[in-house]
Amino acid sequence: MIIDCHGHYTTSPAAHQAWREAQLTAFASGQSAPAYPLITDDEIRASIVGGQLRLQRERGTDLTIFSPRASAMAHHLGDAAVSEAWAIHCNNLIHRVCQLFPRNFLAVAQLPQTAGVPISHAIAELERCVTQLGFIGCNLNPDPSGGHWQDKPLSDRSWYPFYEKMVELDVPAMIHVSAACNPAFHSTGSHYLNGDTVAFNQFMTSSVFKDFPTIKFIIPHGGGAVPYHWGRFRGLAQDAGLGLLKDTMLNNIFFDTCVYHLPGQELLAKVIPVDNILFASEMIGAVRGIDPETGFPYDDTKRYIEQLPLSAGDKAKIYEGNARRVYGRLNQQLKKQQQ
Amino acid sequence: MIIDCHGHYTTSPAAHQAWREAQLTAFASGQSAPAYPLITDDEIRASIVGGQLRLQRERGTDLTIFSPRASAMAHHLGDAAVSEAWAIHCNNLIHRVCQLFPRNFLAVAQLPQTAGVPISHAIAELERCVTQLGFIGCNLNPDPSGGHWQDKPLSDRSWYPFYEKMVELDVPAMIHVSAACNPAFHSTGSHYLNGDTVAFNQFMTSSVFKDFPTIKFIIPHGGGAVPYHWGRFRGLAQDAGLGLLKDTMLNNIFFDTCVYHLPGQELLAKVIPVDNILFASEMIGAVRGIDPETGFPYDDTKRYIEQLPLSAGDKAKIYEGNARRVYGRLNQQLKKQQQ
Repeated sequence: MIIDCHGHYTTSPAAHQAWREAQLTAFASGQSAPAYPLITDDEIRASIVGGQLRLQRERGTDLTIFSPRASAMAHHLGDAAVSEAWAIHCNNLIHRVCQLFPRNFLAVAQLPQTAGVPISHAIAELERCVTQLGFIGCNLNPDPSGGHWQDKPLSDRSWYPFYEKMVELDVPAMIHVSAACNPAFHSTGSHYLNGDTVAFNQFMTSSVFKDFPTIKFIIPHGGGAVPYHWGRFRGLAQDAGLGLLKDTMLNNIFFDTCVYHLPGQELLAKVIPVDNILFASEMIGAVRGIDPETGFPYDDTKRYIEQLPLSAGDKAKIYEGNARRVYGRLNQQLKKQQQ
Repeated sequence: MIIDCHGHYTTSPAAHQAWREAQLTAFASGQSAPAYPLITDDEIRASIVGGQLRLQRERGTDLTIFSPRASAMAHHLGDAAVSEAWAIHCNNLIHRVCQLFPRNFLAVAQLPQTAGVPISHAIAELERCVTQLGFIGCNLNPDPSGGHWQDKPLSDRSWYPFYEKMVELDVPAMIHVSAACNPAFHSTGSHYLNGDTVAFNQFMTSSVFKDFPTIKFIIPHGGGAVPYHWGRFRGLAQDAGLGLLKDTMLNNIFFDTCVYHLPGQELLAKVIPVDNILFASEMIGAVRGIDPETGFPYDDTKRYIEQLPLSAGDKAKIYEGNARRVYGRLNQQLKKQQQ
């Protein structure tokens, strides 16, 4: 089985995004948001069959761990109530996708985050998604301000109530920023990759993994700059007396394979132990074109993995085994959805 | 000849840093800064002979393109006058190092930058350093706010007067942030690497290289996350109709080799054309330990280059030829210093 641990619902029905715009317009003028529109099963089917499902079939993957569109989380817009309502509707829509296509998708939650609002505010929605809707993880935004980096680092105790809930529910978080509203950054370029690097560095200099020895985080986009600079980070940790990264970080941190060329994938597999790599493509996502150097889509990451000098057993870990281990509720939920 | 294009004066005499502290204390209390202290040639010699010079000899490099300590630029402290006085003293000290060791060091300038102050303010100091003191380049900070990213992107027209002066003087800039005062970031970890990635992305989506076809920038630390994500950036540029990076970026952008492990160096040399790679170590800098996996210092980057599957001619470009091309005043200045 090939599990893609990083897919966003980037093709959601137009009415969903239209409601979001209406919600923000209402907020700006001090009004209540309009009622969320009726979206039919057929509309959802149409948005999936020709998109994610077609690509799963064409590329030979089986299951996508699926979450709301990351760039549209936009935690910097509105206020805490706006983010909460938006997260609930986004998550409900993901749940419906998983009900309609139970063999192809498992759900991961968007969180109701807002800059300056304690992350404990997001616990209720995580709990609802996991215990009532069968979600197996969440996307945690380390910078709800959208590129102003105003919140406390992930090492701060203010995040701990959320980490406690993650451990209790046995769900991992993918660390994933949203769109940047700071003109210094390109949302799906520098901001996404930098968010990944920042998160790793914040955990590296923290005691989070001492305090939560079983907690698990996925750093997407191949870990940002981290594997390319693995020597630098090993050296920084060593100089600071923090020990070896393989001991201090790799029981809790996992990297996905959203790296859109073969040399990057080769580096990732050479530097990071195979037990810490999870297959992912982020399709349909940030890069949708055909690479003129290969003739295939940049984000068809399975083609790169196939070319890596790894054993079949190691590839099976990347494709399936590690995801089943990192997402503690995956096996049970998949069984339930496959009945 | 082996030219290290990225060295900072991290071992400067204690009196120099003490003056900086006194300057900031005076600023905080609304006083004038004290007089800059007398620093003797012997003090400067002592700070270099046992540090940079010893490592040049031990590692077999010949010449370091040398600039003030990057993390200590701290453009977010004080105001424009404070940054200007600090830059002048730092640059004068670098000039003295180059006078004392004319065969081992060529100078690169710190700029008097301040968040919210137009970069045109820095032109006079660049001109002084280049035309009067024989400097061959400068370090340009894309985020003088120290991790709050408050200034306009490098694509903005407000940077253009400075670019015009760079072209006129025929000097390149290394894009280099300073210490982060935002607790989200680790100065020499996430902030340095993210600054590199941001700068590349800002140029990629700009018309700077159309408007300044001969301008040259060095992105340090192996280009941040960019070479590892070369496929992603190629795809983002393509999707946005910006063309091929090799056409649009590689006449103007160069990457240094401050990547502290062999797999990262292998990736860099595989992905980026050899004409765009400049040898560098950043010693004595961010990572000073011995890599237990090799038994050698992490930042002894020459050892990695030696192991790359490149021809002697290609290695000579990385070690020397490219630096002579990118730093337009290097040959003439070196000749002068070697007399």
